[in-house]
Amino acid sequence: MAKKQISSIDKSAEKRLQDLEIELTSAPTPFGSYAEAVLSGNLLFLTGMLPVVDHKPKYIGRLGKELDTEAGRDAAYTAGLSALAAAKEYLGSLDKVTRVVRLGVFIATAGDSSDLPKIADGASDLFEDVFGADQPSVRLVIGVASLPLNVPIELEVILEVAE
Amino acid sequence: MAKKQISSIDKSAEKRLQDLEIELTSAPTPFGSYAEAVLSGNLLFLTGMLPVVDHKPKYIGRLGKELDTEAGRDAAYTAGLSALAAAKEYLGSLDKVTRVVRLGVFIATAGDSSDLPKIADGASDLFEDVFGADQPSVRLVIGVASLPLNVPIELEVILEVAE
Amino acid sequence: MAKKQISSIDKSAEKRLQDLEIELTSAPTPFGSYAEAVLSGNLLFLTGMLPVVDHKPKYIGRLGKELDTEAGRDAAYTAGLSALAAAKEYLGSLDKVTRVVRLGVFIATAGDSSDLPKIADGASDLFEDVFGADQPSVRLVIGVASLPLNVPIELEVILEVAE
Repeated sequence: MAKKQISSIDKSAEKRLQDLEIELTSAPTPFGSYAEAVLSGNLLFLTGMLPVVDHKPKYIGRLGKELDTEAGRDAAYTAGLSALAAAKEYLGSLDKVTRVVRLGVFIATAGDSSDLPKIADGASDLFEDVFGADQPSVRLVIGVASLPLNVPIELEVILEVAE
Repeated sequence: MAKKQISSIDKSAEKRLQDLEIELTSAPTPFGSYAEAVLSGNLLFLTGMLPVVDHKPKYIGRLGKELDTEAGRDAAYTAGLSALAAAKEYLGSLDKVTRVVRLGVFIATAGDSSDLPKIADGASDLFEDVFGADQPSVRLVIGVASLPLNVPIELEVILEVAE
Repeated sequence: MAKKQISSIDKSAEKRLQDLEIELTSAPTPFGSYAEAVLSGNLLFLTGMLPVVDHKPKYIGRLGKELDTEAGRDAAYTAGLSALAAAKEYLGSLDKVTRVVRLGVFIATAGDSSDLPKIADGASDLFEDVFGADQPSVRLVIGVASLPLNVPIELEVILEVAE
């Protein structure tokens, strides 16, 4: 019984965040007339998450031009942290998240796309670390012309929360 | 009691449309083998809404090339009106909409993206005016290479409807 | 009574697949840390479906540059088959699908967009043939800079399944 409780604690997203020594910064705040998160039924929809820290873009530019694959991966990871912070701000605790349902990764590129999946892994791997490898999301990866604030990454995120 | 009823009428989307003196034109009709709206559970999904009036594009071109920010804002507003018309056609009344859950704004650009959020506000502000500032949606803003009919804006819309 | 049963069999997605003499190849397998399908409530979300056969892209290039409209249509059709295979793999039978809720068609283009809807029809028409013309989905069509593996088409698919 005690063991089960420990194992259940082990599987907690909040506990995993601690184990990974990830400290979420403050949740993003809107740049316009929209909300960061909306819950409808069991689905929590997030605003397009950017690689922004303290309301300022951490990366500017496009992949294959101003930025390389490593920067792209870190930008996706940073946007993923924003998504976690926004969900935690809305829900109070990430333990209410049962899984990431869908992750869309929009990547500003100068045209070439061979590394798009590797860049997207920066966000996918973070979510897998936090929510568990047994509950992967589906994923869309799209190379686009430009993104708000000229950042290289925008994440589309739909989470499922427990009733 | 009477007051509450008046206040409740004030908060009606249809009443707000009247107050704003917005008259919805006829709902868009499909250009291919798809529907303008599909309801699944409480979520009403709309087809990508274009700045089209009477089945003809109101704007042609890309932002930062053939069109400026003001034209982009109006194109987003016009596509927003199409979304309202499509939802009303499907539901009978916009008062059945409890909120816009997610608004995606795809903007055809020549590359620069500094004004993407301002352009997207053309649709966000309309939805806020009609459905109330206390119920904002989440938002995605993406700059893309091209859109059907060479229009500058396409909206992705998910609405929540009352049971 | 017997007639009704026959008509009900006629309307089965699996039966229609047989009538169309479409044999689904093996379901796609992930290129990274994500799943091909996730069910949340009655909605089955699929990973972005590419025109891939046996884990290899059938088409490489962009529309209006390396590929023409006919190739684009067939790429959309091929990605649609992958979507059907992924849904069947997850559900066991396509007869559990009550409808396609939303189909997004992302098309890698060199800029011109006049044929985007025709290309998207390659997937829409397939879904209509399999799930019935009386149950069309909503649709988004977007021209983008580049897609994973440099393929010309990626499909975003949300299906509704029976309880």
